[in-house]
Amino acid sequence: MDVIKVAATSRSTAVAGAIAGVIRETGQVDVQAIGAGAVNQAIKALIIARGYLELDGIDIVCVPSFVEVSIGDQERTAVRLSVEKREQEPGTGI
Amino acid sequence: MDVIKVAATSRSTAVAGAIAGVIRETGQVDVQAIGAGAVNQAIKALIIARGYLELDGIDIVCVPSFVEVSIGDQERTAVRLSVEKREQEPGTGI
Repeated sequence: MDVIKVAATSRSTAVAGAIAGVIRETGQVDVQAIGAGAVNQAIKALIIARGYLELDGIDIVCVPSFVEVSIGDQERTAVRLSVEKREQEPGTGI
Repeated sequence: MDVIKVAATSRSTAVAGAIAGVIRETGQVDVQAIGAGAVNQAIKALIIARGYLELDGIDIVCVPSFVEVSIGDQERTAVRLSVEKREQEPGTGI
């Protein structure tokens, strides 16, 4: 399972490229961020990635959750954005 | 169309209650935030709202986008989280 870790200093276009790449290959990717600055960069990257993937006819949705992660000997609460292709309604083409 | 506006100072549980309420009533709601602190609160609220709605058997997904908004005479770029019920695959029950 791929996890893309995003920091407040991450470039959102670079993260967007990584998200789009994994989605094209596997259809699913988890994006993880700790702190407001990192969560903001992750969401911006996701919006940019939607634009990239739209060109390939791929629509994505995101399901956010909290996850506990260990950093050194500290427990931190991270935001995980589970990004996946949107389920299409059969026959409607939307 | 309902839009819930979130600030960096918004209480995430209060926003979560508002999101869950509108989803129960209409199945869709837009959440809008400007700036990293507000986007972070919005995502946290969304995660909490997922927990509330799970108890009702409702699963939600989110589609983020940028929107230009006017505040006074200034143009600002906001993050809009379009929250909707997840499409179910017919017959699978998931």
